[in-house]
Amino acid sequence: MPRNQQILLDNRPAGEAVAGNFKLVSNETPALQDGQVLVRHHFLSLDPYMRGRMNDSKSYAAPQPLGQVMQGGTVGEVVESRSPKFQPGDKVVGMGGWQQYSVVNAGQPGALRKVDTTHVPLSHYLGAVGMPGVTAWYGLVKIIEPQAGQTVVVSAATGAVGSAFAALAKARGCRAVGIAGGPDKCKYAVEELGFDACIDYKLHNDAASLSAALEGACPKGIDGYFENVGGMVLDAVLPRMNDFGRIALCGMIAGYDGKPLPLSHPALILTARLKLQGFIVSEHMEVWPEALKELGTLVGTGKLRPRESVAQGIEAAPEAFLGLLKGKNFGKQLVKLI
Amino acid sequence: MPRNQQILLDNRPAGEAVAGNFKLVSNETPALQDGQVLVRHHFLSLDPYMRGRMNDSKSYAAPQPLGQVMQGGTVGEVVESRSPKFQPGDKVVGMGGWQQYSVVNAGQPGALRKVDTTHVPLSHYLGAVGMPGVTAWYGLVKIIEPQAGQTVVVSAATGAVGSAFAALAKARGCRAVGIAGGPDKCKYAVEELGFDACIDYKLHNDAASLSAALEGACPKGIDGYFENVGGMVLDAVLPRMNDFGRIALCGMIAGYDGKPLPLSHPALILTARLKLQGFIVSEHMEVWPEALKELGTLVGTGKLRPRESVAQGIEAAPEAFLGLLKGKNFGKQLVKLI
Repeated sequence: MPRNQQILLDNRPAGEAVAGNFKLVSNETPALQDGQVLVRHHFLSLDPYMRGRMNDSKSYAAPQPLGQVMQGGTVGEVVESRSPKFQPGDKVVGMGGWQQYSVVNAGQPGALRKVDTTHVPLSHYLGAVGMPGVTAWYGLVKIIEPQAGQTVVVSAATGAVGSAFAALAKARGCRAVGIAGGPDKCKYAVEELGFDACIDYKLHNDAASLSAALEGACPKGIDGYFENVGGMVLDAVLPRMNDFGRIALCGMIAGYDGKPLPLSHPALILTARLKLQGFIVSEHMEVWPEALKELGTLVGTGKLRPRESVAQGIEAAPEAFLGLLKGKNFGKQLVKLI
Repeated sequence: MPRNQQILLDNRPAGEAVAGNFKLVSNETPALQDGQVLVRHHFLSLDPYMRGRMNDSKSYAAPQPLGQVMQGGTVGEVVESRSPKFQPGDKVVGMGGWQQYSVVNAGQPGALRKVDTTHVPLSHYLGAVGMPGVTAWYGLVKIIEPQAGQTVVVSAATGAVGSAFAALAKARGCRAVGIAGGPDKCKYAVEELGFDACIDYKLHNDAASLSAALEGACPKGIDGYFENVGGMVLDAVLPRMNDFGRIALCGMIAGYDGKPLPLSHPALILTARLKLQGFIVSEHMEVWPEALKELGTLVGTGKLRPRESVAQGIEAAPEAFLGLLKGKNFGKQLVKLI
């Protein structure tokens, strides 16, 4: 059996996550038992939610266990199978974790799914046509529920979730406004992703300044907001929300390093009769088929052209992940393993 | 026509509201025109929402205009009518404002409603069987949507809204826990209003302490929270919310005096996948008939026995209102005018 390089969570962050929290090890892949398949990972997905799980605190998911392989989404190819459900050569998406190979019990529901790479590149099943895309779909369609002509806003606009959000919002006749960090990302958001406008939050030192910029970009106010960031950005958006606006809370990455970030004016939720709702997309598996179908069509027809930041080799995963947390990625952050 | 003593908003509060913000004047009531009725007010309702409207800031309602009669709910008796819809002697509920008499256009939808005082005392149409009761009903039934056996919590538990909330929650098989200020109110909440437990927030100097007390009173966590207060109380409740909990935001009285009160840990909304929703009951007139029917039955059958704090005479209204804002009332705060 092949050697398998793996990255473990070695210790938990004290404040900001650092490379020393992780540890690279090498093991033999175990021999397969009946019903198991061996998957060679082509790409590993890096996602902001992983930072939350590195803390040993209450969150929507159990903490990432210490000393074990970092959990995460993977796409790859079946290289050996002792299950009738999979053949060597099958392209599959799963939760293989930060390692080169994984052994999967093929009978476990949802553990491994065959995908078609005719119209959609394999890596996109970790992004636009995967968990991040469905995340955007759920927040927009099920929580924000926009009507044509309404204005919707998303933070981390050029990330995997934000990219899909733009295409989904435009398909519904909405004005889509992004918030991103830096002129390159904002240019890309408008020119490539279809946002009607994009605001560079790095040009603003406080919530009031960012809020004024939002007012300019959203002359009719904001009807729906998809939150990936929290902190100052949420404070800036809240006063711009129209009455009966909806806010989908998907990520609060700004607070993951341990400094709790307050919401400055919660009374606005009352005065504007807003709805705020937190969600995690893996708890809504019933929407995945419908969402993936729409997302696959958007990618297949060129209406959603997601960009990817690709780090090379398993040993590059920790630094790529820490960069993602600082917004250094441009689009979906992946690690290419072959 | 009779003399009509009125209380106007003379100037807006700078910080805390004070008696000098109001002004007592006396006028002749004007002669009736066709379609109008003259109502003599028996009781005037004092409600926390009025404080928000004294500020000249964006809120769900337009600010109370300066130099005009303070707006507010009233119950009374028709003493003169030039409308076929009303006869002298009819008991009516309306929005007559802080004055002894009002002239009402009887044809205006919703302006004046006849009520039956056979089983429900007239004053209760300003409380348990009126706007505050329907407010409790909407937040509980339409936002919190509790199931039998779940735990629901309400702040300002012995006020008009909280009293109705307890009866409605118990009728649905919930564990009902109140938060109120002082041992007398907490005793009353449990012994008279049917709360399973009541926590005296005055015994706690910070959110952590209050939160620990809530943990004791809610051993299975909190599934639904009805917020009348904001500030430290909301901070204390949030960590105790169960996954998928619902919070109905009805009032944030703690922040009405101009100091915006932050929410310390908004990330909990995400990690527990909570829903927070602000509402104002006058925007949901479609539920009033159903809600008033249930509330009237609860009062008529003695399952809801609301207490009232009654100030005597129009000139007592400002001090009674300022006391309400400080929690000095015990149950529904009224001003008796005859």
